[in-house]
Amino acid sequence: MTDYRPPLDDIRFVLDEVTDYGRLAGLDTFSHADLDTVSGVLEEAGRFMAEVVAPTNVDGDRQGATRNDDGTVGLPASFADAYGRYVEAGWGAVAFPPSYGGGGFPWAVGIALQEMLTSANMAFSLCPLLTQGAIDALLHHGTEAQRELYLPRMTTGEWSGTMNLTEPEAGSDVGALTTRAERRDDGSYRITGQKIYITFGEHDLTPQIVHLVLARLPDAPPGTRGISLFVVPKFLLDEDGEPGERNDVTCVSIEHKLGIHGSPTCVLSFGDGGEGAVGYLVGEENQGMRCMFTMMNNARLSVGLSGLAIGERAFRQAAEFAQERQQGRAVGAPAGTSSPIIDHADVRRMLMTMKAQVEGLRCLIYANAAAIDLAANHPDPAVRERNDELAAIYTPVSKAFGTDLGVEVASTAMQVHGGMGYVEETGVAQYYRDIRIAPIYEGTNGIQAADLVGRKLALRGGAAVKELLAEIAGLDTDLAAAGDDLAAIRAGLADAVEALGSATDWMLAHGAEDPNAALAGSAPYLRMFGLTLCGSMLARSALAASKRLGDGRGDASFNRAKIVTARFHATRLLPEVRALASAATSGASDLFALTPEQL
Amino acid sequence: MTDYRPPLDDIRFVLDEVTDYGRLAGLDTFSHADLDTVSGVLEEAGRFMAEVVAPTNVDGDRQGATRNDDGTVGLPASFADAYGRYVEAGWGAVAFPPSYGGGGFPWAVGIALQEMLTSANMAFSLCPLLTQGAIDALLHHGTEAQRELYLPRMTTGEWSGTMNLTEPEAGSDVGALTTRAERRDDGSYRITGQKIYITFGEHDLTPQIVHLVLARLPDAPPGTRGISLFVVPKFLLDEDGEPGERNDVTCVSIEHKLGIHGSPTCVLSFGDGGEGAVGYLVGEENQGMRCMFTMMNNARLSVGLSGLAIGERAFRQAAEFAQERQQGRAVGAPAGTSSPIIDHADVRRMLMTMKAQVEGLRCLIYANAAAIDLAANHPDPAVRERNDELAAIYTPVSKAFGTDLGVEVASTAMQVHGGMGYVEETGVAQYYRDIRIAPIYEGTNGIQAADLVGRKLALRGGAAVKELLAEIAGLDTDLAAAGDDLAAIRAGLADAVEALGSATDWMLAHGAEDPNAALAGSAPYLRMFGLTLCGSMLARSALAASKRLGDGRGDASFNRAKIVTARFHATRLLPEVRALASAATSGASDLFALTPEQL
Repeated sequence: MTDYRPPLDDIRFVLDEVTDYGRLAGLDTFSHADLDTVSGVLEEAGRFMAEVVAPTNVDGDRQGATRNDDGTVGLPASFADAYGRYVEAGWGAVAFPPSYGGGGFPWAVGIALQEMLTSANMAFSLCPLLTQGAIDALLHHGTEAQRELYLPRMTTGEWSGTMNLTEPEAGSDVGALTTRAERRDDGSYRITGQKIYITFGEHDLTPQIVHLVLARLPDAPPGTRGISLFVVPKFLLDEDGEPGERNDVTCVSIEHKLGIHGSPTCVLSFGDGGEGAVGYLVGEENQGMRCMFTMMNNARLSVGLSGLAIGERAFRQAAEFAQERQQGRAVGAPAGTSSPIIDHADVRRMLMTMKAQVEGLRCLIYANAAAIDLAANHPDPAVRERNDELAAIYTPVSKAFGTDLGVEVASTAMQVHGGMGYVEETGVAQYYRDIRIAPIYEGTNGIQAADLVGRKLALRGGAAVKELLAEIAGLDTDLAAAGDDLAAIRAGLADAVEALGSATDWMLAHGAEDPNAALAGSAPYLRMFGLTLCGSMLARSALAASKRLGDGRGDASFNRAKIVTARFHATRLLPEVRALASAATSGASDLFALTPEQL
Repeated sequence: MTDYRPPLDDIRFVLDEVTDYGRLAGLDTFSHADLDTVSGVLEEAGRFMAEVVAPTNVDGDRQGATRNDDGTVGLPASFADAYGRYVEAGWGAVAFPPSYGGGGFPWAVGIALQEMLTSANMAFSLCPLLTQGAIDALLHHGTEAQRELYLPRMTTGEWSGTMNLTEPEAGSDVGALTTRAERRDDGSYRITGQKIYITFGEHDLTPQIVHLVLARLPDAPPGTRGISLFVVPKFLLDEDGEPGERNDVTCVSIEHKLGIHGSPTCVLSFGDGGEGAVGYLVGEENQGMRCMFTMMNNARLSVGLSGLAIGERAFRQAAEFAQERQQGRAVGAPAGTSSPIIDHADVRRMLMTMKAQVEGLRCLIYANAAAIDLAANHPDPAVRERNDELAAIYTPVSKAFGTDLGVEVASTAMQVHGGMGYVEETGVAQYYRDIRIAPIYEGTNGIQAADLVGRKLALRGGAAVKELLAEIAGLDTDLAAAGDDLAAIRAGLADAVEALGSATDWMLAHGAEDPNAALAGSAPYLRMFGLTLCGSMLARSALAASKRLGDGRGDASFNRAKIVTARFHATRLLPEVRALASAATSGASDLFALTPEQL
């Protein structure tokens, strides 16, 4: 197990050169948050994550969460300590609105902070992550009274939040849920039913848990159009807004999972004691799906981020191991000596692959966050609208491609460790187990792919995506102007964007009349999209690094590494885009040619 | 957790049509083992694996192996029972020579049996697998006296065997080992040192464990040329050849691993009690590496097989789950209904991908085994030689590509299960954890790739590989003659073999003068090779199925499924071959362009 060292230089570079942070800092809302200020905040946050949070990671895995007979759930003692200090330091509040006690920083900065938190301890990070989803729901759909009651203590993290969507027969199919809500004369509701897979649904880190719960009114239409959202506090608030009487929500059991053992995954029962748990409507009746998407959208980006965060941690650990571990004689090393394994070409290949994947992913995730910031805060409605589109397009890619890469990087990091990687003591096995949930929750990666080829490709009849591809293709001019050093990047990107463009045309031509044809190719299409987006952003990095080198700005060695990494990505990873085109555009007939019995 | 159902129809089809089993059965050695006899044996074996072995799989994972204070290692009670019945039934002996109590069946049949054993319980299967390695070493390099002392009870499995290669500082680099062996006047040796990662190094399933141990004589040359192999029985044999006095080998500790908990991974100490453990030389002094390769070669194929076996099990479980689990409405299903998830295109994509990967892999692994059989038993020396080459070429591909696919299929199977896949109770998480060791042990997959582009590509100056590629290219004529049904297979295979051929030429042109250039592309090259080999063998399957359909032979539905699966593979998976070409042939410069600090 190596220590966590926050990648502050990389983070600052991406904020500056890929998200175009200056544009964010130029907005009135963020005038207090210039890049130097932000860098200072991130440096301090990084120190906190490394020193306070990271040491709890192993406890979380080995001790895990325990449900006691009285329904309470205990976490390792180190979690309570670290969480208390997290709240005290105010890290949870940095990117929330000042009106509710937040720091008013851009979401792109919040994401950087979240990257470091998640690298330090993914299971732990889920408590703030779910709280964030609950905050988003209340912020956008709650009444002013609700916001004032809950948000100030949720933004700080004093109170945590949960998202209660899933039921045994309603997973990806949220519309199938059966939890009931009944109106009461006082304007409140009574909630009855059972929810599963509720992350941090019960725990001992905070004195209050604010459950956001999807349920169905007796007269609601069937399916997703009949779902309403409710806030159901673990303790009902008294007249002073303080937690008082216990609400009728109980943790019936917790799951024994492959990973994230420090994150309690609860079965919650509402209304077991009698007439239902007390809940309050958020937004309008039967508008729960809209509210849910508000909760889920940012959560999806944050889950994609976990692929980056665990990938970063696993990559770093593998890179350090490869410098220390001596095995065999590398080509060119003196006879009779043994070499650090980093000198073996195939180990280098694994390290460079991880580096390119992690750095490309950081670009994508941060750009996604910056688009959310611009969509919410830019004075020009056209800019807001375009960035809203971009965030909508990026989000399923960040989630699905990001988490797939997270799993791949963790697996490669294990491979670099050889036999030691398979032994739990080394720590990489935990990354491999922890991150494997990420392609599944917050909408499986298949759901994300369906969202991309369905809703997102349909934006402005496909023009929203095609303009993005045209922008990427437009990088060609800059790359050409930058000279030989970037020629391989130029060639790789041009080929990828051409293949992605053709697949996009195919999807647009076939998706409307034959949805299954588009769905059949949706996952490979999303991967093409992710590879190309990351490739384009790494190309931007290389352009910026090239310019910095020309101007004599920044650390030359760092800048040269950016160019090499982008070139490696373009030469060795981007060609997969064209290879995926066939799977993306072959339609559904071969998929359905076999009966279940023939499978 | 679903029951294990042996894929007997698929196994018989592959033996018959891909390994050309008739050719094996036509040999004198195997005249008793025609396909119908073999099918009967496999059916009975399959029943045994499903009913006796498979139920122990969860015990192995949850209870695992435990080391007691006295150095003994306990396994779940169900293991002892199943193992006893395994020995009694004689399953371990089927493919070993009759002269030592074996059944004298072809290795291709032994592999089929091993597939079912490994699907049933991978951790359990490692006891016979390591025994097999030890048997191979004694069979090929032991004295007649050693063979008679040990082999009869090892082929039955009454005694188990181990392979002691690895030391803390000598993993992939076997030449770095420091375990010492000293000659004694009575012709025996005394072994002193510590070995790690010894699978089934200590356990309570058998009354004797036969350790095969690599060690170094005091006057041995450095590196791999100074290694000798010894047999070190846990109990010294008395004059009647029965286990007597305890030898000085102790299990110091066992590892806490990500998976295969039912397989004890031991640290073994030799000679802690005094003057060394008693060992007997196998083969000649300083010829241990040769002996080790004998042990490892078949073991490598068997490890590749584990990718197939776990892939098969995980795929079947996912396919059953997908038929039962209802979520969402599939395209075309009546409004208001929910569909089994197998009706969703992206779930179908995952299932078909797994099916194509597993079936392709079965072809490769069984063909590899059949090549070993022909190399050992064919009367024509030219046929023996060619099949020896083919087995040599196939083996690193079976091991590395097979285990990589095993991990991929287990991960996809988890994805099909959604949230339930991440919960340990469901069982797929165990497959995902268990199989992850396979790309690491018996020579990491990186070592396999180096072997392929080094030793194997060098066979007859590249002609051995190029003839194989020419044979594959030759399938084109048959595919063309088979008509439209196979047109997509023809196109996909032609493209793949063309790309692989070019990459092969590149490797041959650059590998000799710049070994790092070849090593830099070795892993992508091996994957190209694996995809193309599996694609070509699936094409053979499709040709055979097409012929069977024409002749009205066999189950039509089964035969049609073979064609669809091959077409799916050719259209959606084979294009990766060309995409990998760039990574395979871009040389080492970008890999070594960054200093360790720049990474």
